[in-house]
Amino acid sequence: MSIITLTTDFGSGSHYVAAMKGVILSIEPTATIVDISHDVPAQDVRHAAVLLDNAADWFPPDTIHVAVVDPGVGTDRAIVYAKIGQQQFLAPDNGLLSRLASRTKPSRVVRLTEPAYWLEEVSTTFHGRDIFAPVAARLAAGLDPDRLGPSHDRLIAFDWPEVRQLADRIAGAVVEIDSFGNLITNLTAEMFAGRPTDRRACVVCNIYETWGVYSTYAGHPSGTLVAVIGSGGRLELALVGDSAARRLGIGIGSPVTLAWE
Amino acid sequence: MSIITLTTDFGSGSHYVAAMKGVILSIEPTATIVDISHDVPAQDVRHAAVLLDNAADWFPPDTIHVAVVDPGVGTDRAIVYAKIGQQQFLAPDNGLLSRLASRTKPSRVVRLTEPAYWLEEVSTTFHGRDIFAPVAARLAAGLDPDRLGPSHDRLIAFDWPEVRQLADRIAGAVVEIDSFGNLITNLTAEMFAGRPTDRRACVVCNIYETWGVYSTYAGHPSGTLVAVIGSGGRLELALVGDSAARRLGIGIGSPVTLAWE
Amino acid sequence: MSIITLTTDFGSGSHYVAAMKGVILSIEPTATIVDISHDVPAQDVRHAAVLLDNAADWFPPDTIHVAVVDPGVGTDRAIVYAKIGQQQFLAPDNGLLSRLASRTKPSRVVRLTEPAYWLEEVSTTFHGRDIFAPVAARLAAGLDPDRLGPSHDRLIAFDWPEVRQLADRIAGAVVEIDSFGNLITNLTAEMFAGRPTDRRACVVCNIYETWGVYSTYAGHPSGTLVAVIGSGGRLELALVGDSAARRLGIGIGSPVTLAWE
Repeated sequence: MSIITLTTDFGSGSHYVAAMKGVILSIEPTATIVDISHDVPAQDVRHAAVLLDNAADWFPPDTIHVAVVDPGVGTDRAIVYAKIGQQQFLAPDNGLLSRLASRTKPSRVVRLTEPAYWLEEVSTTFHGRDIFAPVAARLAAGLDPDRLGPSHDRLIAFDWPEVRQLADRIAGAVVEIDSFGNLITNLTAEMFAGRPTDRRACVVCNIYETWGVYSTYAGHPSGTLVAVIGSGGRLELALVGDSAARRLGIGIGSPVTLAWE
Repeated sequence: MSIITLTTDFGSGSHYVAAMKGVILSIEPTATIVDISHDVPAQDVRHAAVLLDNAADWFPPDTIHVAVVDPGVGTDRAIVYAKIGQQQFLAPDNGLLSRLASRTKPSRVVRLTEPAYWLEEVSTTFHGRDIFAPVAARLAAGLDPDRLGPSHDRLIAFDWPEVRQLADRIAGAVVEIDSFGNLITNLTAEMFAGRPTDRRACVVCNIYETWGVYSTYAGHPSGTLVAVIGSGGRLELALVGDSAARRLGIGIGSPVTLAWE
Repeated sequence: MSIITLTTDFGSGSHYVAAMKGVILSIEPTATIVDISHDVPAQDVRHAAVLLDNAADWFPPDTIHVAVVDPGVGTDRAIVYAKIGQQQFLAPDNGLLSRLASRTKPSRVVRLTEPAYWLEEVSTTFHGRDIFAPVAARLAAGLDPDRLGPSHDRLIAFDWPEVRQLADRIAGAVVEIDSFGNLITNLTAEMFAGRPTDRRACVVCNIYETWGVYSTYAGHPSGTLVAVIGSGGRLELALVGDSAARRLGIGIGSPVTLAWE
């Protein structure tokens, strides 16, 4: 019972996704395939990196996460297998795994160079179908990752917004916007453990501010900006009953400060 | 071979959905997960209630339908297990099951209070992952629903548009708009059994009218408004080759009358 | 381990799709259901025909591909089972299979006339649920297709754009636009094997031209129009880092010529 997840920018109803699934099931018919998303914005490697980082750890150990957001397809960019924590990944080495790897050092990284595990004919534009899918299916069927190719020294690392902890405030940024338009930051609850979260705490994002950090959106009047500790343990800003991102015009990268009087 | 369906407003490619699937498969790897929809408009409990009512009965007996459209997450709103007809449901008690329950009285309703079946850490904002998913997986693995918590007296009931049957006409409303823009009403074929359905029958919706109730959209000129008995046994209005909802500006709640000369 | 794929214009989150899956799993709980797309533009049979033609061959032999884009539902249009190459199909005979059948002659075509394999009650507007789904499930469970009805003489054939091979050029058309906005043509690499593909080769589409046919989009400056041999072995035009279809206003049917100086 091996699980393979798919994350791509191919678009939900595209035949590219169907072809990948067909190849996987042709090699390993008992694989359970789970779509994480095929609606990553085209070539937005950062978006996919955040998505995968949020989703992967919830899957059973040794799930195989295949991520194909791959503007460099057909160049000499590497395709890698990586074991990070208890999860396995197949991705181009273009920063897609860098958010996961910045939290947990990969215990094994292998560069895919052994064509015996790929489709016989490999196109230059669709490695998702021709390399990623067959390799994922063979890993699901029990192939040892070390047979895929040589060890790969280090993964390309992106800069991810950092948090500065100062005496009277913590300064970070919006790093994600969810489907409700909530603004998810890189400030975690651990960073302000022990500090007051009542109305002495002030959260500022761009020109907006709100007082107090709550445990739930509910119970606040519609249209108010509320700061909560979200489901990932991170500080989030929500506009009750509305989309904070759209209504307030706030995007990824906007500065967020949590300060105390 | 247990089946778990998912209906949420999380958005198709969101990591929230992926996390729920990961949790389910971590506990019960053999569960078959079927997405009903993750594109319920944000916090639109009524929409989800209609969707679930239309879809659930087509699944095998004892399918577990998980529905998370949950504006009250983190408050003291109840989460319930309900057995309605031959299907099982997990949902917040916020009206989401009220359309199903208005047709068929639930044979068992249990309030989820027993944290032994939840994830160890439960967030205040994402019960889909922390409560619904693990409970669904444990039910799929054979857990007796009575162990989830105490019996729950009654479910929150919404008002659903009613149909008035008068001497010369039947008056109801548009209750749903499908992906083709067809207008689906709450008038069922049983309500006008024995009455003429030829051109003596007149269907009026807002300022539009059409004569005759047909068995199919096909065979009518493009652009004409046609009344048919739809696949759910209900009166529908379709604009042939177009979207009646968009083109005629008709929404859910618009009055529909079927009258006879 | 039978695989059933679904291709419809019902919309991803619609209860129509859920009902089809429920019916399939009620009859054959072990079937593996794979969504190819539910976002085919409403009633766009040609779009579905291209999609299915691109996707089907990548699945294991004897996969059952169910395609329901069916403006004629409720009329006397035929529903057919067809074996084409190693794949099986269920579709209305409305041209949906004509692109597949133009490449490979079907080895068997049967018209579905035997109601014993359908749901007991068949609506006039939703054969996807009432006929296609139960028949697919029964085929997955081992039913001999010959029992579905009589042999069906010939499938409705659409005209598909043809390629003209002239002394100094090859003239075809854009036949598909993928989710990146790339323009996929009906010119295959075989058609110009042995001819130069360096900058002596000129590709013209509407008022735009580009020189050279490359093996990858990568390595070209952002915003340039590049011709490549795509993953289906066909000539494609891409605007690097952008959507050629949207930015250049090019649609399906636009003429494409590959010429040599």
